[in-house]
Amino acid sequence: MNNFKRIKAIFFDMDGTLIKHTWRYSQITDALFEKFSDALSPLSSDEFFSVFWDKNADMWNMVLDGAIDGKTAQVYSYTNTLRALNQDPALGAKMSDYWLHLVLKEAAPFDETPLVLQRVRARYVTGIVTNGLSITQQAKIKKYALAEKVDFYLISEEVGFHKPDAQIFELALQRAGNILPQEALFVGDNLDADIRGALNVGLQPIFLNPADDQSPPDGVIKIKQLKELLALLAL
Amino acid sequence: MNNFKRIKAIFFDMDGTLIKHTWRYSQITDALFEKFSDALSPLSSDEFFSVFWDKNADMWNMVLDGAIDGKTAQVYSYTNTLRALNQDPALGAKMSDYWLHLVLKEAAPFDETPLVLQRVRARYVTGIVTNGLSITQQAKIKKYALAEKVDFYLISEEVGFHKPDAQIFELALQRAGNILPQEALFVGDNLDADIRGALNVGLQPIFLNPADDQSPPDGVIKIKQLKELLALLAL
Repeated sequence: MNNFKRIKAIFFDMDGTLIKHTWRYSQITDALFEKFSDALSPLSSDEFFSVFWDKNADMWNMVLDGAIDGKTAQVYSYTNTLRALNQDPALGAKMSDYWLHLVLKEAAPFDETPLVLQRVRARYVTGIVTNGLSITQQAKIKKYALAEKVDFYLISEEVGFHKPDAQIFELALQRAGNILPQEALFVGDNLDADIRGALNVGLQPIFLNPADDQSPPDGVIKIKQLKELLALLAL
Repeated sequence: MNNFKRIKAIFFDMDGTLIKHTWRYSQITDALFEKFSDALSPLSSDEFFSVFWDKNADMWNMVLDGAIDGKTAQVYSYTNTLRALNQDPALGAKMSDYWLHLVLKEAAPFDETPLVLQRVRARYVTGIVTNGLSITQQAKIKKYALAEKVDFYLISEEVGFHKPDAQIFELALQRAGNILPQEALFVGDNLDADIRGALNVGLQPIFLNPADDQSPPDGVIKIKQLKELLALLAL
């Protein structure tokens, strides 16, 4: 028997928890640069991305502050880079679109995700709580019909709070029917955003760590595959 | 006698034409850094501004594109710089406010500006057409009551077009009573934004060049002081 008798809701992180990213960032950036390499010649991918990540950090921080939306952030990460490198800034929107195309191409639910969500939802309120830009997260949710597989989802850009901020966890508890923190589990693969964030608010975290290369704080359950959740919950 | 018989309206650039900037940028940046040097120690002014001008260029271009407003641009030029240099990003808004304070402190109308505007306005429709951020240009217009000294003013951020873009000149012609380009003079100190911009639309430009260090295109009248305009117009 487990200690989940009081649990009413199970919340899931999305990327890395429900959705598998099969490519590393470097594979996406390589594919992106390859697509635009003729237009950007003689610039190299390294030259482009050494500038890009700084611009991207500025834009992402402005999204976190609520100063700009994610779509603007994504386009201007490229546009500002192109201008700084004396390239055609009109390529910014095209590169941003292609980045989204590549992310959607390589990101897909784990094989076990549909079954796990279906079984869990039959007994618990279920929600997705994801950090990220509305434009990318909505695209993944739509492509894989995730909204229909859970009771609600929260995207950090849309709600204005980002894990590990307590407020996004509190919002999830509200959306699950004003339940108490100790009535919810939070399943995620990020020790800071998911596990520390959940612990701070009093939710019980479950650490998903497929690579088995990190240890959660004492007392936190660790699983290596999402489907282990079914055994934990005796589903 | 002059060739201004058909002229119905006189448009003025603002900075450098109606308003004198007594400090160079380096004096403003020095004064700004001095104010915050304790908080930013051991950073030097050069280290700070070498990063700042890149961030500022990104923000300004985003304003030109209409992606963000000028207030956001001004604050995040600092905030993004502070973050990149691992300083407290909360200083961004304070530095931005102090920059505005310094600009307002050092920028003042030329001695002759009130008299020239008064005399010109007695016979012509008058307008100010200025490139810049709403936040800074409105502050100068308010501080020196310039709105009361002309019939209208256009600030590029607010109208969405920036000199030398034809559309801001065309808007001025509309605001002056739907007059024709050849019925307007444009007085400005910038060869590209003011003089080339006016010529492209068919307005007659007058080049104000107090330093007497640049030559306008053939056929363009050059003056060294704003008050020479009164003699040109026989006022």
